[in-house]
Amino acid sequence: MKKMVLIFTLILILALACKQNTDKAQVKDALHEKATAIFGSLDPVAENLNNPITDAKVILGQALFFDKRLSKEQNISCNSCHNLNTYGVDNMKTSPGDDGTLGDRNSPTVLNAAFHIAQFWDGRAHDVEEQAGGPVLNPVEMAMPNEKIVVERLTKVSGYKEMFAKAFPDEKDPINYSNMTKAIGAFERKLITPSKFDNFLNGDLQALSEEEKSGLQTFMDKGCITCHSGPLLGGTMFQKFGLFGNYWEYTQSKTVDEGKFKVSGVESDKYVFKVPSLRNIEKTYPYFHDGSINDLHESISVMGKTQLNQDINSEDLDKIAVFLKALTGEVPEAYTKAPEISM
Amino acid sequence: MKKMVLIFTLILILALACKQNTDKAQVKDALHEKATAIFGSLDPVAENLNNPITDAKVILGQALFFDKRLSKEQNISCNSCHNLNTYGVDNMKTSPGDDGTLGDRNSPTVLNAAFHIAQFWDGRAHDVEEQAGGPVLNPVEMAMPNEKIVVERLTKVSGYKEMFAKAFPDEKDPINYSNMTKAIGAFERKLITPSKFDNFLNGDLQALSEEEKSGLQTFMDKGCITCHSGPLLGGTMFQKFGLFGNYWEYTQSKTVDEGKFKVSGVESDKYVFKVPSLRNIEKTYPYFHDGSINDLHESISVMGKTQLNQDINSEDLDKIAVFLKALTGEVPEAYTKAPEISM
Repeated sequence: MKKMVLIFTLILILALACKQNTDKAQVKDALHEKATAIFGSLDPVAENLNNPITDAKVILGQALFFDKRLSKEQNISCNSCHNLNTYGVDNMKTSPGDDGTLGDRNSPTVLNAAFHIAQFWDGRAHDVEEQAGGPVLNPVEMAMPNEKIVVERLTKVSGYKEMFAKAFPDEKDPINYSNMTKAIGAFERKLITPSKFDNFLNGDLQALSEEEKSGLQTFMDKGCITCHSGPLLGGTMFQKFGLFGNYWEYTQSKTVDEGKFKVSGVESDKYVFKVPSLRNIEKTYPYFHDGSINDLHESISVMGKTQLNQDINSEDLDKIAVFLKALTGEVPEAYTKAPEISM
Repeated sequence: MKKMVLIFTLILILALACKQNTDKAQVKDALHEKATAIFGSLDPVAENLNNPITDAKVILGQALFFDKRLSKEQNISCNSCHNLNTYGVDNMKTSPGDDGTLGDRNSPTVLNAAFHIAQFWDGRAHDVEEQAGGPVLNPVEMAMPNEKIVVERLTKVSGYKEMFAKAFPDEKDPINYSNMTKAIGAFERKLITPSKFDNFLNGDLQALSEEEKSGLQTFMDKGCITCHSGPLLGGTMFQKFGLFGNYWEYTQSKTVDEGKFKVSGVESDKYVFKVPSLRNIEKTYPYFHDGSINDLHESISVMGKTQLNQDINSEDLDKIAVFLKALTGEVPEAYTKAPEISM
């Protein structure tokens, strides 16, 4: 009799387990279905066919990312503005360069940046590799005078000789500027931060609380998804900041930035910026291209007015903010500090 | 005395002329100001640095555009689907190829197409030059077996020998597939159709009627400009068709087209299409990637529902339609027929 009970119990457990699996496989939840249609799913790594990711390249890129030798007076590294201990940003309106001069635009997070259609707020670099070469030579950023001097400095570090050789094994003179940007790019391609929202997208309907689901629904219903779609909730298009009214009248920005127009010279590119990703948005304040707004609720409210011609009420602002906080992920611990290199 | 009257009259005319100029220069109309901020202004020609436009190239491109030799059984030319006498379209849901088989997607207009960020509904060609090479070899379109046979056919036409030589004067063997696409591209770069809306944008506030202005205001207020911005009122981005609901439930489309996903394989590209330009939209029915809707009002209504989560009322639909009709321009007469070429 005991045996029968045991067998019966086992069958019951098995049946329940099976049912749970079936439930997961046959998820037919309207919210989930809509969300996957809009956001797809986040890839674990952002590959680049022109710059295959290898462990040797990533560790070199990580070393370079944290290396202050890449700035003229050796005051700052990539990590100074894109701090991996604080979600890839420095939480400042705009960032001080090597000599302390502040830049023009808010430093965007490097997290998940490799998936963006283009780099910088105005999209002037095609990918993270091209981006990585910019700030090093920018006079108000790392301020190195030219590529040659960067390469000379790197060549003097004995550890880099070995690391570049390992990262670019087929090359005779692997230490060059282009390879530096490739290594940093390869490292950045690993900086992907899945969150509980991804568990939800992948079929775990319990991964989000009822409040977060309600926020997700509100986020979609209000039309935020018109621009903030795809796995990054952004990063897929350019948009005019201020479709309804001048943005600076809402943000109280101190200067008016013409955005993509500065690069293209095309009239209709005035005040056009890349739509930023909303991943880790809770942590990557202050907001917008000039860091003019500190508060998440306020920035959602500004977006409602300038982009959707809507006054989003405070209840809905709360809901959306709750959802956005579910987009906070984790930077892999191993990537948050400089690796050891021989001097 | 007569002399005095004459001088006085001249001064008066001059003063009036000056005043008119000042009025134009100091246009400070809120609607006009907002419209120019959103739409910029239309360039007269879409230049391509890699394919400089010359008269010789344009006339060759025009000849090729109308030449049925570019299809296997010589039944169709570019102009068959992109008819320049009917605003660069054939007004069919989808177009018959060389053997009468219908294609999958609605033939988009070639007018102003050179300004689009990418070509085809899914953006798979970078520019009009790359696009021009596609249909010639597509089995359900012009169905030529390969580039070599196209070039052989062109080489047999004595007029083309001279025209290609003139269009590509520095080349030894100018008749090749790549030059064919360049010539067609150069021709298409001339197919720009300014309308009275451009007179308005350029400062003539009387160029639009009160009804058209009211429609423009409604078009902007409803949020159509989120996607339909820039000088083409579209053509600057990709967007999911059906941000709010499945598009095919509104269009009654017979098949479900996955759009850009077919090219990229990326989940969040499902049902994503290039946002079409609204220039000449009155004349380029039927609408959408599959030509599933014939009526302009109905297609605006569908857009409201699927893209803006709004039921646009019939009064506003009328207003928007009135404005859209002000986007109808003219194809320069000289470009609407095949130029003469020696056989």
